[in-house]
Amino acid sequence: MKAVVFEKYKTAPSLRDVPKPTPGPGEVLLKVAGAGACHSDVAVFRDFDEQFGPPQLKPSFVLGHENSGWVEALGEGVSGFTVGDAYLVYGPAGCGHCRACSRGQDTYCENAATMPYLAMGLGRDGGMAEYVVVPARNLVPLGDADPVAAAPLSDAALTPYHAIKKSLPALGGGGKFALVIGLGGLGQIAVQILTALTGATVIATDAKQDAMDRARANGAITVPGGPDQAEAIRAATGGKGVDAVFDLVGVDATIALAMSVVAIRGRATIVGIGNGTFAWNFYTAPYEAELANTYWGTVEELYEVVDLYRAGKITPEVEIFALDDALEAYRKLEAGELSGRAVVAPHGRWPRTDARMRPGAAGTPSHCRVGSQDSDRLAGHS
Amino acid sequence: MKAVVFEKYKTAPSLRDVPKPTPGPGEVLLKVAGAGACHSDVAVFRDFDEQFGPPQLKPSFVLGHENSGWVEALGEGVSGFTVGDAYLVYGPAGCGHCRACSRGQDTYCENAATMPYLAMGLGRDGGMAEYVVVPARNLVPLGDADPVAAAPLSDAALTPYHAIKKSLPALGGGGKFALVIGLGGLGQIAVQILTALTGATVIATDAKQDAMDRARANGAITVPGGPDQAEAIRAATGGKGVDAVFDLVGVDATIALAMSVVAIRGRATIVGIGNGTFAWNFYTAPYEAELANTYWGTVEELYEVVDLYRAGKITPEVEIFALDDALEAYRKLEAGELSGRAVVAPHGRWPRTDARMRPGAAGTPSHCRVGSQDSDRLAGHS
Amino acid sequence: MKAVVFEKYKTAPSLRDVPKPTPGPGEVLLKVAGAGACHSDVAVFRDFDEQFGPPQLKPSFVLGHENSGWVEALGEGVSGFTVGDAYLVYGPAGCGHCRACSRGQDTYCENAATMPYLAMGLGRDGGMAEYVVVPARNLVPLGDADPVAAAPLSDAALTPYHAIKKSLPALGGGGKFALVIGLGGLGQIAVQILTALTGATVIATDAKQDAMDRARANGAITVPGGPDQAEAIRAATGGKGVDAVFDLVGVDATIALAMSVVAIRGRATIVGIGNGTFAWNFYTAPYEAELANTYWGTVEELYEVVDLYRAGKITPEVEIFALDDALEAYRKLEAGELSGRAVVAPHGRWPRTDARMRPGAAGTPSHCRVGSQDSDRLAGHS
Amino acid sequence: MKAVVFEKYKTAPSLRDVPKPTPGPGEVLLKVAGAGACHSDVAVFRDFDEQFGPPQLKPSFVLGHENSGWVEALGEGVSGFTVGDAYLVYGPAGCGHCRACSRGQDTYCENAATMPYLAMGLGRDGGMAEYVVVPARNLVPLGDADPVAAAPLSDAALTPYHAIKKSLPALGGGGKFALVIGLGGLGQIAVQILTALTGATVIATDAKQDAMDRARANGAITVPGGPDQAEAIRAATGGKGVDAVFDLVGVDATIALAMSVVAIRGRATIVGIGNGTFAWNFYTAPYEAELANTYWGTVEELYEVVDLYRAGKITPEVEIFALDDALEAYRKLEAGELSGRAVVAPHGRWPRTDARMRPGAAGTPSHCRVGSQDSDRLAGHS
Repeated sequence: MKAVVFEKYKTAPSLRDVPKPTPGPGEVLLKVAGAGACHSDVAVFRDFDEQFGPPQLKPSFVLGHENSGWVEALGEGVSGFTVGDAYLVYGPAGCGHCRACSRGQDTYCENAATMPYLAMGLGRDGGMAEYVVVPARNLVPLGDADPVAAAPLSDAALTPYHAIKKSLPALGGGGKFALVIGLGGLGQIAVQILTALTGATVIATDAKQDAMDRARANGAITVPGGPDQAEAIRAATGGKGVDAVFDLVGVDATIALAMSVVAIRGRATIVGIGNGTFAWNFYTAPYEAELANTYWGTVEELYEVVDLYRAGKITPEVEIFALDDALEAYRKLEAGELSGRAVVAPHGRWPRTDARMRPGAAGTPSHCRVGSQDSDRLAGHS
Repeated sequence: MKAVVFEKYKTAPSLRDVPKPTPGPGEVLLKVAGAGACHSDVAVFRDFDEQFGPPQLKPSFVLGHENSGWVEALGEGVSGFTVGDAYLVYGPAGCGHCRACSRGQDTYCENAATMPYLAMGLGRDGGMAEYVVVPARNLVPLGDADPVAAAPLSDAALTPYHAIKKSLPALGGGGKFALVIGLGGLGQIAVQILTALTGATVIATDAKQDAMDRARANGAITVPGGPDQAEAIRAATGGKGVDAVFDLVGVDATIALAMSVVAIRGRATIVGIGNGTFAWNFYTAPYEAELANTYWGTVEELYEVVDLYRAGKITPEVEIFALDDALEAYRKLEAGELSGRAVVAPHGRWPRTDARMRPGAAGTPSHCRVGSQDSDRLAGHS
Repeated sequence: MKAVVFEKYKTAPSLRDVPKPTPGPGEVLLKVAGAGACHSDVAVFRDFDEQFGPPQLKPSFVLGHENSGWVEALGEGVSGFTVGDAYLVYGPAGCGHCRACSRGQDTYCENAATMPYLAMGLGRDGGMAEYVVVPARNLVPLGDADPVAAAPLSDAALTPYHAIKKSLPALGGGGKFALVIGLGGLGQIAVQILTALTGATVIATDAKQDAMDRARANGAITVPGGPDQAEAIRAATGGKGVDAVFDLVGVDATIALAMSVVAIRGRATIVGIGNGTFAWNFYTAPYEAELANTYWGTVEELYEVVDLYRAGKITPEVEIFALDDALEAYRKLEAGELSGRAVVAPHGRWPRTDARMRPGAAGTPSHCRVGSQDSDRLAGHS
Repeated sequence: MKAVVFEKYKTAPSLRDVPKPTPGPGEVLLKVAGAGACHSDVAVFRDFDEQFGPPQLKPSFVLGHENSGWVEALGEGVSGFTVGDAYLVYGPAGCGHCRACSRGQDTYCENAATMPYLAMGLGRDGGMAEYVVVPARNLVPLGDADPVAAAPLSDAALTPYHAIKKSLPALGGGGKFALVIGLGGLGQIAVQILTALTGATVIATDAKQDAMDRARANGAITVPGGPDQAEAIRAATGGKGVDAVFDLVGVDATIALAMSVVAIRGRATIVGIGNGTFAWNFYTAPYEAELANTYWGTVEELYEVVDLYRAGKITPEVEIFALDDALEAYRKLEAGELSGRAVVAPHGRWPRTDARMRPGAAGTPSHCRVGSQDSDRLAGHS
């Protein structure tokens, strides 16, 4: 079968023939419906090498960690699946039997340091191919929803969903305010999730006007950048500050913005991997405001993401590519020319997909977080 | 001034002249904007006597525990209020310095048994008059929102709000379902609050078609009564059951319905005072489903109710009466002839009110909960 | 190998030779260290038949759902285990890939109705044998702790632990009170867990004096039965009531006791399967007091139970039997002659075990909950 | 009466005669039992001036914000108190009727910027005098517990209690670890509270050996400072990190230590006002670890602190001074010569006090937090 293979550090992937995989015990073979192209893939093939990056990501392997597909074959010991049914794939793949994996949070697998991979498409063959093998426990049923457009939900929706779910206590009730900084793919979905799940007034901010226009269409009020940005955000809250901030960018300036507008007893979650640093100080941090980062999500949360998708409450913006055009998809991603999340659909578009497509260009670059942090942490250094 | 006075057990109140009150230390005199007429008032003057009902409710006192008004004068030691500003009144009035009162939950005042009253209009002079005196700490600012239509929010919205707030953990996330049983005044507001604050699919049920029509307009899907009611509700959840049920009726049949459709790990809150009984059994209760009653709410929650009201997310249906027509309001309440919550506006309608009014008749009788329970409990018997 | 086999409805199990099992894909073969005998086993072979009881429990299968053992062999696709290491077994066995299983809560497996078994020893071969096969994800490492005495923790500790964990919010802080009704095996462990994990004053009650003596040794204060029981319990709380009640018996009288002493805003969890019924009523239930049942626990919670066991904070009282004496263990269990949880140790006592043993007879019969409820529920009737 | 008066910026207070105060409406006059001397008092009279520090703290006023006493007289509108009964005083004094004050959290009073004071002894006359006037709602009953030794609980226990209460979710269950950095007065009480309320293994660290000895006596295990400190702490947790860190010092090094040992999904609360700064970065912060400061606590929490004190679970170490020796108490505080929290007892020691006294010198300087932060924040700049 054809696949997009990461073959060599600091080198663009190649499209070539590889053997069609066979599902092992506990695994399922999927015919790929969609595979999202993510900025972290670019980090994998552009930035990492033996010294920098998680050791699990050394070449070669098939890219693609945002995957969906139809059940094609079952490995030994697997039951409860029907060939042809559509599933979304939970990307992280831990040991499967530690404390964290037992609660479906493979991202924090206690045996990650000794695992040979981090996720499908990250150390283990991913979905940028005609077929992909995944553990049965990583499959979330899509029912009759479009599986092609669904693919990026497994990261681009699950990541903000997890951050938002942890912030729900701060947003529960009347008179609450949320802020989304950075309105690229993840940011737009964050706005949609916040609008769907909370009664909070959602404030959104980005340097690009069209990104803000889309955020307004998704239910947010917007505040432009500039010197008055923090003051305008605070004013939009009636002066009390933002109950839950989500920074999808994560550079110095955005973290500082987040902490300058968060309310007393609020929460600022840094989602974006901008490698920003913030000088936290007792006197300048609002009382009891929590500062935390976040990373991907859990299997059960992906079920809830799919619930929202099937209910029409999350609509990812996607640009579909044939598998033969996958390298072009990465080229456009690196060049910033995409009008939505690039999804490679090796077996073509599913007819119902069109209803879920929307035009518009992504704003702030979206992201994934597989960087030096993981390298250090997974090696047990943090 | 004129006031609606409860003068004698088992006797309708009378409209008569009483002295205009003077605010004591820590109190504020309000010029009444609106005073809601509530079914529990009827219980006070129809059902209670020396033997039955809380001892704090012995006549005579001015009725009206759902009040709003404009600051008219401040008692000693009160500051931070401007004459003429509009406020909603938190009705319960506890000792003010016990553990429960310290967190703004006077409903569970630890000294209630020795207090001479339960609330404004319940043992202590209420708002069915030209003026009312309330503790300063019971005032929630309304800003420029219509104070007349706001009056019933202090009970008819705060009560379901409190129940819903406690259920938010069960409703947080995608794929959740809420059920409102009984679509009278409180039920309609419950639907509005659930729609505003959660992403849950709100299912609503009532015997009256027009009540269900209004619930649909408020964002619910509806299921009619009848032998298939429970099955239809369960089907609407895809079979898994309801994450949070709110029973605004509280008779045997509705509690049984609630417990028959609640999901594993769900919550059933009985809000309505129908004096129903339910035969709870380990084997028939879904695993970990919580069954609990509820009672009014806290001062801080009333702030949040006002936030929702000011944002246009709660729109109480009211029918306005002049103070001279207050007895007629109670007559229509008892006769079931009201088309919304009856609000007595002693000083006339505030011009902006019309925008917030909506036609339509209330379905299931609304309620308040001042019954034998309180009598027993406050006397220390429970 | 020898095994205790449930061969026929309403018939005591027999000890006979069966083939040594082989681990399938994703499974592990354990050399059994300990297998606890539980009252629910008695229900399985005494009470159930084709009409009554979960269909998954039809004979024949090896009994034993409280198991521990040493890794003997790995099935296909399993890694990360070392032969000889000791593990405790999470008993419930769901489909492994639904929403509930994804969070390690197989007890609420969404596919339970179509699963051929409920747990090891409950429809699927259990641990009353020389060897047992379990899914790899059901294994919790015991390190160097005694695996024989640990066996019953997988049910007799996990069940109250789960109930207590869900009640921790009600018990968090100073001035809290917990009540344990029924001081058999689970009740004593409940007292130990509450003492270890909370600052609550633990009140314990049982009809047997020696059981109360042991509860006092475990850190509780005790209240005897009799007509003044509820009043004495309430007095022990200073009149406010109990923040979290755990009823390990579950008959009419104990549920009624629980609900008569629970505090406003408290929680009553019915753990015991006494098939009791309680007439819940709005007026007699303390405000906002939650009533709920509970069922076993999660994989992650079993990790935490093991943490407590390894820290010496839970000390199950066990009476060890050779596999050849397993039927005698069941006889004593049915006759009420046991002085602790019966644990069958097919390969003998582990030397360090003695340090963890304590004399004393169990009070109120302990329990497990596999009854008609499961039958109905798993068949989709609830 | 005699009182310790802060009369002039950057000048030690003086002991002089002032008029005995009279309680206003809603207030109570207390005969002072104990008044704690706190490092923040020193900041008030040594560091602040017109430019630096909250404007509410301009001289002159009586010092003492950690107060207890016996009811001497009631102001107008106050009932429910008996002359002679002992109470602990909740220090913060907000407007009494905003959202934050309504939940008993005057620390975050929404009208603080326009209030003339922050707390008793901080802008408003405090308890370093024979008598003090406090709002009735600030009184927490002490029953028959020693009121003299109780005085510092209102800050030195309430502050860590509030921080710990907010961290209880991270500490709930088996296998949890807490860390207390800095074992002065607040740190020792933090160890006691953690030991009383959680099952966590409490790790304590301080530069002083005797402080660590006392922490061990209070139930902690200790780790000394030095280059291996973080590694030793992490090793004590089995490598996984600390679930909840409490930094009672708050300088650069201790915040860095906190964030270097906190676990994934853990929480680091900076309690100490050391004016430290920490360079937070996505890659070096453990996943989802929350960083937050904290400030004093709520009225209801002070009730819970008193519950722990009355149950013997918190034993503050105090050194008692006569009112005539109050200036000497401050001198010893500044000189670091105190062997416990200095408490001025204007009316002598209460006989039962001795039972609660313990020898030993405080380690790391304790603290209060009224610094430039408050100045800025209360002036509306943050």
